[in-house]
Amino acid sequence: MALALSLGRRGLGQTWPNPAVGCVLVRDGRLLARGWTQPGGRPHAEAMAIAAAEDCTGATAYVSLEPCAHTGQTPPCAQALIEAGVSRVVVALGDPDPRVAGKGLAMLREAGIEVTTRVLEADARDDQQGFLSRVTQGRPMVTLKLASSFDGRIATASGESQWITGPAARQAVQALRASHDAVMVGGNTAREDLPALTLRTMSERRPPVRIVVSRELQLPRMGPLAEDDSGAPVWLLHGLDVADDARAFWNARGSELIEVPKDDTGLDMASALQALGARGITRLLCEGGGLLAASLLRAGLVDRVVGFTAGVMLGGDGLPSLAPLGITALSDAPRFALKEVTRVGPDIAHVWTRT
Amino acid sequence: MALALSLGRRGLGQTWPNPAVGCVLVRDGRLLARGWTQPGGRPHAEAMAIAAAEDCTGATAYVSLEPCAHTGQTPPCAQALIEAGVSRVVVALGDPDPRVAGKGLAMLREAGIEVTTRVLEADARDDQQGFLSRVTQGRPMVTLKLASSFDGRIATASGESQWITGPAARQAVQALRASHDAVMVGGNTAREDLPALTLRTMSERRPPVRIVVSRELQLPRMGPLAEDDSGAPVWLLHGLDVADDARAFWNARGSELIEVPKDDTGLDMASALQALGARGITRLLCEGGGLLAASLLRAGLVDRVVGFTAGVMLGGDGLPSLAPLGITALSDAPRFALKEVTRVGPDIAHVWTRT
Repeated sequence: MALALSLGRRGLGQTWPNPAVGCVLVRDGRLLARGWTQPGGRPHAEAMAIAAAEDCTGATAYVSLEPCAHTGQTPPCAQALIEAGVSRVVVALGDPDPRVAGKGLAMLREAGIEVTTRVLEADARDDQQGFLSRVTQGRPMVTLKLASSFDGRIATASGESQWITGPAARQAVQALRASHDAVMVGGNTAREDLPALTLRTMSERRPPVRIVVSRELQLPRMGPLAEDDSGAPVWLLHGLDVADDARAFWNARGSELIEVPKDDTGLDMASALQALGARGITRLLCEGGGLLAASLLRAGLVDRVVGFTAGVMLGGDGLPSLAPLGITALSDAPRFALKEVTRVGPDIAHVWTRT
Repeated sequence: MALALSLGRRGLGQTWPNPAVGCVLVRDGRLLARGWTQPGGRPHAEAMAIAAAEDCTGATAYVSLEPCAHTGQTPPCAQALIEAGVSRVVVALGDPDPRVAGKGLAMLREAGIEVTTRVLEADARDDQQGFLSRVTQGRPMVTLKLASSFDGRIATASGESQWITGPAARQAVQALRASHDAVMVGGNTAREDLPALTLRTMSERRPPVRIVVSRELQLPRMGPLAEDDSGAPVWLLHGLDVADDARAFWNARGSELIEVPKDDTGLDMASALQALGARGITRLLCEGGGLLAASLLRAGLVDRVVGFTAGVMLGGDGLPSLAPLGITALSDAPRFALKEVTRVGPDIAHVWTRT
């Protein structure tokens, strides 16, 4: 099952709106075949593994998520496992999608196949957090990336920000992007940094959707988001009152314009995330800036935080990584639990999850 | 030698103005005795080890710092090793103190003892950084402790700061204090937090000197610094113009008043550290606040930084860990190299050294 989970993780960021699943076929202690959900979400992991095996009769299938029971663009995987003649199916996690939700397991059992569930379930739940969030809450899992100086600054007083962290941390950000369905920044970041938000390395991967949150759509009409031909989609989250010429420019550019209601401080981020969930996004990486990160935190919408901390001091006059949160009592502040901390080149990388 | 170094480290923070040294006596592969510099700096490590061994004839002595050659309040250790009849001395690091500086090794060699030097020298240099700093630069090594929220804040907008980090991190701060000769805070911290700056645990250790930097000596005349009977000395670094009553109050309290010239922004920290070095301090821990930390960083006087980072977000309206540094170009910002990073309870501890 650990191998199936690890195979499934290859698909993270690549398979949306489908979950990234791994499947291993074993018989008499011998590995027959491996499979994982392919980019775009099809073929599914089970179909890949069955196709790779010469003969699955009597085999045990280890699958990281309950095999599907419904016919979508592909036939149900539970049916495929039955037809392949496997005698036992071991599953890590049930699929909460109402079209599956136990029906996959029931189909297998009715066919006389022995079914074992909840093997390494906590790990599978962790891997499937984006898919589960979309199915149960209608919004993607949100990872917030904060790369800052030792004292929590993302630029000097004069705005210099390249580079606070080293090449290894920047490479780790590329890997983060590749494992998310979409990358999101705020309008200030889009205006000031003109980021590409593409995969500079790992170009064989499906590139994440590039999302900019900009109430008025006042975004630069030059730079990579407006001009590149990387093939990575650009989606723009904006408010109701947008100038016609901005709308026309970005429409002509092929960007998807997504209208979102406003709240007191900007766009309503809960609605924004629902809109992204409705379009199939399961794993969203927010790369700042401070205003957008603060809106997400205030709304309680951040599930994971990935920090990169450099050994450089920028001082209280540097640009803070987070805009004001309006917190007075410490007990009201958003808290996260440490998952792992490692060295990346000269910097520290640390991953936290919502408590 | 690794054992001698580890024994020596027991004395860090305890032996000032003397170095914390470790000594191991070995013969025929058997450990005869161990010794380390005692609290207050005497007896020395070699004397302790010799006294603990029944007979050192023909033994090898592993010493983490060159044995002293001068008669101070105790006879020279080089002489003691000769009289004890050891046949070989292995030394990690030469002592730059002009009263020693090779003379200890020369005495041993003249007595026909085989001398090996520079064994694990880099580790010894690291352990002796405070002693070396005082002997060669006249000032203590400075460790800056910064315990903050994920986004580099040390209190909420309303000033709440207890507790951002967890009990394990606070215990680690106690151990940091115990391994430094003195603990220093700025006047704002002394006024707002009324810190005790004592060892709440490890009460068998020699307590660090408690130092407050306060230009005008306008410090609260209540609270632990003014009132406690912990036995931990209080030293006050102040400017030239101090009200007589403040001077009289702190004199009567038994505090040491140390006058330091001012510079543009406060007290001249280079002069302040020279005054501490002249009084024997080799390892100084600065525990904030943001203004004092910024003065030390601006003056290039910070040798190590120990960070504690909690998984809590306080936002841009929280109190920053560092006051403005006036940095515009990133290349001018103080940089530190990562030495180690670990988990402490729910938080991260990370240690950095000046690059």
